[in-house]
Amino acid sequence: MTDSTADAAETALYDEAADLDAADPLAPLLDRFADAPGVSAYLDGNSLGRPMRDLPERLARFVREDWGTRLIRSWDEQWMAMPETLGDRIGEVALGAAAGQTIVADSTSVLLYKLIRAARAHDPARTEIVIEEGNFPTDRFVAAGVADETGGTIVRLAPDPVRGVSVDDVAAAVTERTAVVVLSHVDYRSGAMADAPAITAAVHEAGALVLWDLCHSVGVIPLDLDAWGVDLAVGCTYKYLNGGPGSPAFAYVRTGLQGALRQPIQGWFGAKDVFAMGPAYEPAPGIRRLLSGTPPVLSMLGMQGMIEVIAEAGIDAVRAKSVSLTELALRAYDAVLAPLGVRLLSPRDAALRGGHVTIGHPRFQAVTQTLWAEGVIPDFRFPDGIRLGLSPLTTTHAETVRGVLAVRDALSASGV
Amino acid sequence: MTDSTADAAETALYDEAADLDAADPLAPLLDRFADAPGVSAYLDGNSLGRPMRDLPERLARFVREDWGTRLIRSWDEQWMAMPETLGDRIGEVALGAAAGQTIVADSTSVLLYKLIRAARAHDPARTEIVIEEGNFPTDRFVAAGVADETGGTIVRLAPDPVRGVSVDDVAAAVTERTAVVVLSHVDYRSGAMADAPAITAAVHEAGALVLWDLCHSVGVIPLDLDAWGVDLAVGCTYKYLNGGPGSPAFAYVRTGLQGALRQPIQGWFGAKDVFAMGPAYEPAPGIRRLLSGTPPVLSMLGMQGMIEVIAEAGIDAVRAKSVSLTELALRAYDAVLAPLGVRLLSPRDAALRGGHVTIGHPRFQAVTQTLWAEGVIPDFRFPDGIRLGLSPLTTTHAETVRGVLAVRDALSASGV
Repeated sequence: MTDSTADAAETALYDEAADLDAADPLAPLLDRFADAPGVSAYLDGNSLGRPMRDLPERLARFVREDWGTRLIRSWDEQWMAMPETLGDRIGEVALGAAAGQTIVADSTSVLLYKLIRAARAHDPARTEIVIEEGNFPTDRFVAAGVADETGGTIVRLAPDPVRGVSVDDVAAAVTERTAVVVLSHVDYRSGAMADAPAITAAVHEAGALVLWDLCHSVGVIPLDLDAWGVDLAVGCTYKYLNGGPGSPAFAYVRTGLQGALRQPIQGWFGAKDVFAMGPAYEPAPGIRRLLSGTPPVLSMLGMQGMIEVIAEAGIDAVRAKSVSLTELALRAYDAVLAPLGVRLLSPRDAALRGGHVTIGHPRFQAVTQTLWAEGVIPDFRFPDGIRLGLSPLTTTHAETVRGVLAVRDALSASGV
Repeated sequence: MTDSTADAAETALYDEAADLDAADPLAPLLDRFADAPGVSAYLDGNSLGRPMRDLPERLARFVREDWGTRLIRSWDEQWMAMPETLGDRIGEVALGAAAGQTIVADSTSVLLYKLIRAARAHDPARTEIVIEEGNFPTDRFVAAGVADETGGTIVRLAPDPVRGVSVDDVAAAVTERTAVVVLSHVDYRSGAMADAPAITAAVHEAGALVLWDLCHSVGVIPLDLDAWGVDLAVGCTYKYLNGGPGSPAFAYVRTGLQGALRQPIQGWFGAKDVFAMGPAYEPAPGIRRLLSGTPPVLSMLGMQGMIEVIAEAGIDAVRAKSVSLTELALRAYDAVLAPLGVRLLSPRDAALRGGHVTIGHPRFQAVTQTLWAEGVIPDFRFPDGIRLGLSPLTTTHAETVRGVLAVRDALSASGV
């Protein structure tokens, strides 16, 4: 393509982005987030969401008042309840989960371990753990470890990597030997979105439990766990919930399953009476039995503001903007990247796609380094993928176009 | 005793405290900690240490710069290394541990689970876990859970509750069936300090591993894990390391044991190459194999300032002040509480005691409520103990006397 055609494509994309940003009902919320000097396009909100502008003040108040002045009294006054109150709020705003089924704790990996172990023990005759071979490493590694230590077997699904796992894939794999099916709702690489209600039903058809990893969908896609009949779920709070690096994860266990569920890490905070300090462990009656150690209070503060912004915007409006951003990213890809030989590694149909779009090129590892140095920040995934993670509440359409054009420029400069 | 005798005792105690504070070489460091308006005596630094005065500024800088501006790039630039660099610094300043053996992660409960499971698997022929029946609940609960799931047996030590566990207690319990001995270095109730080097040697005599829980000694008592030949240890960072409510814990594994150690929660951050995302889990070669999920970066910031203050003071000076504070608390107890029938539940000999002193009276649950409302904040432990936790870097001698006299006043007012 000639330079003038490229310029015309660029102008058209920026014009379109400007129109979309002008019409964006969520645009006024952009100001709630901290500035990032020198960053011209942040395309990795699906790895690490940006902090709220008022977080330093919130943290300072917490340090001076709740921690520094109320001191140990704050445990009684507010902190003991936080894993549940914050979990309930995530459930209400983002999961479609009634109260008493969601708790904030540990990390996604540790909660996966607790839930997969609990699911494996739920019916000892069921020895198989079904997982997708392209699932996120921690899900696969944890599941393999649980299978090893409990004498279980891993059953691997191998769907098309762009299309992702289908109902048929799952239905063909589940049997009377299946203990639990562990799947990501949105694939961390392709962004493919699984049909969670239909797959959940297929798993139940075989009498097994389903565990959904919601890391790449919570806060960006409307979820309806109660209505879908989901058994178990985990999710991350530092991606679209903007909790900060390493903020604790959450777990969901449907009410009817809680009484029968025993998780392996019997710590004092999961006990029926934390301060009785009696001779034997007795699990708390509800979702609190998933706790083990002292809840990470400071790390829970980062996400609070974001959860309220999502509530204010409404998760459906967040999803609408997410679709608008990824559709624009695809049009930009078609216009300026496809001609350079860049492959599309995400579904084209918005209904089958989460909040990010992945593209591939052999030079993308080097290209990512160039972009990062310039303040254009996508995410690189081995071996040659760039993820354009477009967190709807913090990303503009113009920024999306800027990012895609920067990828084109860096790739062109590399000699392609 | 008459009112005038009481007044004389009070005056003498305050005079003595004033002299000790005037001569305290660590007194200039008190100003490094945040003010606590309305708190006249904080005696629970062994449950929740106080925040540093500069922490709000440190957190604000982190949110605006490291997280808010460097964004995902900070993982490469600094966060990936934090669990080890912070662990190494704790090892150097407080544990007597050479680099590469200490890591910050998870919670004490989760790390106990990982290490007890690993120790149980280390030599499968050794099936017994030895633990003290009065050990902290989470240690006992986690150990019992591990014994249940691995077909192991719990062997319970029942030492004198004030004197604590002795070398003889341990030597009599360990055999060729012992996998691991799990003990607290300082008892959470009595404050009794175990003879860690001698007990470690006795455990090794039987060919077993020792796991020390350092929650109530790290940062207040000089430790020498390498010299003592300790195998495994865990500890808390929100007590004498002032990391904030629920800040992550640390684990120590001696170098020679690391290669053989397999912990059960095989998460991506414990893998040899975190971002290879390959088909199978291979543990990292060193102490990083203890990691599972994404490290809780925000929660690691609270302790950094305190660790440097301890380094500046020197752990021996911290211990000297700790002894001075607990000795004064005992003299105050003798003068004004013993006459009211309050029992001493801690060792009298400073060499056998950690950083807190525990006293008992049937009315202490109610008394604690009265004291908290007045801004005098000790810790109540079921059924009738008050712990006077005297964190040396944040507590004055005058504050200690004020606290003990407030206990007397509240107890007297209750009708004793």
